[in-house]
Amino acid sequence: MSLIIQKYGGTSVGSVERIQAVAQKVKQQRERGDSVVVVVSAMSGETDRLVALAKAIQPEPLPREFDVLLSTGEQVTIALLSMALDAIDCRARSYTGAQVQVRTDSAHSKARIRDIDDARVRADLDAGRVVVVAGFQGIDAQGNITTLGRGGSDTSAVAMAAALKADECQIYTDVDGVYTTDPRIEPKARKLDRITFEEMLEMASLGSKVLQIRAVEFAGKYQVPLRVLSSFEEGEGTLISFEEDAVEEVKISGIAFAKDEAKLTVLGVPDQPGVAYKILGPISNANIEVDMIIQNIGSDEKTTDFTFTVHRNDYTKAMGILRDTAKALAAREVLGDEKIVKISLVGVGMRSHAGVASRMFETLAREGINIRMISTSEIKISVVIDQKYLELGVRALHDAFELASPA
Amino acid sequence: MSLIIQKYGGTSVGSVERIQAVAQKVKQQRERGDSVVVVVSAMSGETDRLVALAKAIQPEPLPREFDVLLSTGEQVTIALLSMALDAIDCRARSYTGAQVQVRTDSAHSKARIRDIDDARVRADLDAGRVVVVAGFQGIDAQGNITTLGRGGSDTSAVAMAAALKADECQIYTDVDGVYTTDPRIEPKARKLDRITFEEMLEMASLGSKVLQIRAVEFAGKYQVPLRVLSSFEEGEGTLISFEEDAVEEVKISGIAFAKDEAKLTVLGVPDQPGVAYKILGPISNANIEVDMIIQNIGSDEKTTDFTFTVHRNDYTKAMGILRDTAKALAAREVLGDEKIVKISLVGVGMRSHAGVASRMFETLAREGINIRMISTSEIKISVVIDQKYLELGVRALHDAFELASPA
Repeated sequence: MSLIIQKYGGTSVGSVERIQAVAQKVKQQRERGDSVVVVVSAMSGETDRLVALAKAIQPEPLPREFDVLLSTGEQVTIALLSMALDAIDCRARSYTGAQVQVRTDSAHSKARIRDIDDARVRADLDAGRVVVVAGFQGIDAQGNITTLGRGGSDTSAVAMAAALKADECQIYTDVDGVYTTDPRIEPKARKLDRITFEEMLEMASLGSKVLQIRAVEFAGKYQVPLRVLSSFEEGEGTLISFEEDAVEEVKISGIAFAKDEAKLTVLGVPDQPGVAYKILGPISNANIEVDMIIQNIGSDEKTTDFTFTVHRNDYTKAMGILRDTAKALAAREVLGDEKIVKISLVGVGMRSHAGVASRMFETLAREGINIRMISTSEIKISVVIDQKYLELGVRALHDAFELASPA
Repeated sequence: MSLIIQKYGGTSVGSVERIQAVAQKVKQQRERGDSVVVVVSAMSGETDRLVALAKAIQPEPLPREFDVLLSTGEQVTIALLSMALDAIDCRARSYTGAQVQVRTDSAHSKARIRDIDDARVRADLDAGRVVVVAGFQGIDAQGNITTLGRGGSDTSAVAMAAALKADECQIYTDVDGVYTTDPRIEPKARKLDRITFEEMLEMASLGSKVLQIRAVEFAGKYQVPLRVLSSFEEGEGTLISFEEDAVEEVKISGIAFAKDEAKLTVLGVPDQPGVAYKILGPISNANIEVDMIIQNIGSDEKTTDFTFTVHRNDYTKAMGILRDTAKALAAREVLGDEKIVKISLVGVGMRSHAGVASRMFETLAREGINIRMISTSEIKISVVIDQKYLELGVRALHDAFELASPA
């Protein structure tokens, strides 16, 4: 008898019929003798509906109240799924994040889970009940409702798996696993049976929508075995494993990309210690996450040029802050570009092989794609290019690294 | 500086624009120097939407989960109203029933409030904030979400007023006060400036939709001054007062009616002690509320006839139970009528004046309206008549008792 955490996203619970289908899947798992905790998202469309209501009232909704509002989305789903389970004679009980309790910090809209009180959940599991938990939400030390940010239900599921020491955390989604790249862009993309934890982390953080990065980090930290599967089709999905077999071999697992990036540059900043902090501190204080950062020497030796990328939603806000900073620092000029994307090659053992980088650059050059920024890590190489070259770049790299055929 | 509780129903918060209008009203009250606690319902239509979702999954939704589901309706409103207040520089903070905490018993869908922890609310009021509380909902001793039943937001508001010892509890609705009868049926109906507490109780319990009966009971018990006003128009509304001026004078305040009644009769029940309990016990155990009860001697002296009314929604269920009981008691026959309504005259000091009853019966007789049942109390006379005579009966009585002209 195993303890399985199953997480179903918004599309998987997007209608009454789909909720009933999820109930059948949960019941099947129960009938194998396993204990099951189900973590669910809001029904697809629901969060957008709530966001639209809020924005009609306040373009930048009050963070505390925005969380009160959004958390109702999952609360609707847990109630409906518990009813659907009860309707097929599978006893179930629902819990909101506050009821569980999923304790977080107080950073509304992007709260982080501190701990989970598993007492009530365990009691229900012991009593033979399926426990249905609202993903994406928690409660802070003052009893305020918090949310973990979009996609936070994955994190909730992994945190629940860690707290309960579950045997497997299954993330059900609308795709049947992790692919070498997005099949909508490259039809030859191939499903991976396994991927290492580190590769998954890069794939997630680089814009592959399958799993939320914080969920992957959490799973890594607590060694939670993670599996991505389809809610709609049978299949084993993709297992995210901890072993790294054959690290010596160059192995590109996949191509990730991020469409929603924007690039900001400040030119001619007088070069002095602490300049990076002076530029990025105010951005970070405004709760804007910075992705890539590049600092170059300026056009003369006394100044420096500084470029970073942010999520496109934060572009206007970041630009406003950067202009103020540039003025204070007596910088020469501020530039921005909203029409850029990032493409990344991900693979264990890549770093020791300079050949990967050069083949990547060569491939892009052959297609006439100009590289705007480059950044590398242990297991990935990322380039920023003009938005219009996204599809062309992904397909060219998928071919060049022969990802369509199994490694 | 007074402490005012304002309650806004579903229609008053039925759209973004209406929520913004409510925010303006609340701000006006604040600017008079008063402290304000706002209790709100779900946006109109929202509860129906949630009920439809639940019933698509389970015709009789699991009570615990049904409450988890429905309570999201008010949670959406408190968040949006708090944002709307913030948007016009009126600081506000929202609380769900669980957060306040509104502690109830565990009777899902019809929970009763036990007490309210006013500590957090007081702290916010002291800090100059408007407090926005979700009506209709609470939490039981085990931390389960409960709801007070439809219209329970009135009860929440009054309970909050009692807990905070508020100076006035204002119930904003889509009518501008309590009328002598429903103006949609009798256009000559007149708004009352004042009504006594007991009269309001009868008006509410007899089907006047302005206020929920439990809210009125609660207000009476805790001596909460209650005022009914319109969210859409200016005006003083109707004050529900505790004094009974000039009780000696016959004063008909108004005509209430209940459209959603159904009548059940069991004929020829062997007359023996405890027969009323044997008939009504199973009905009550099924959580069906019984309204009027009449017992008459049967066609022979050894049997008795028994008639009672229930809400029309409970008719089929009640009829099924009654048939079983009738069989067990060897009763002769079971009859039912779904097409009945109840009309009631309400007024303090009525009882000592037999003239009221006779004028009522005479008026109905003159219109050819057959009376099916009669029931009286200290301050009301109710008759059950065929549904088709509702409008005719109300108008005839409104004329006969000259309610269109101020007393």
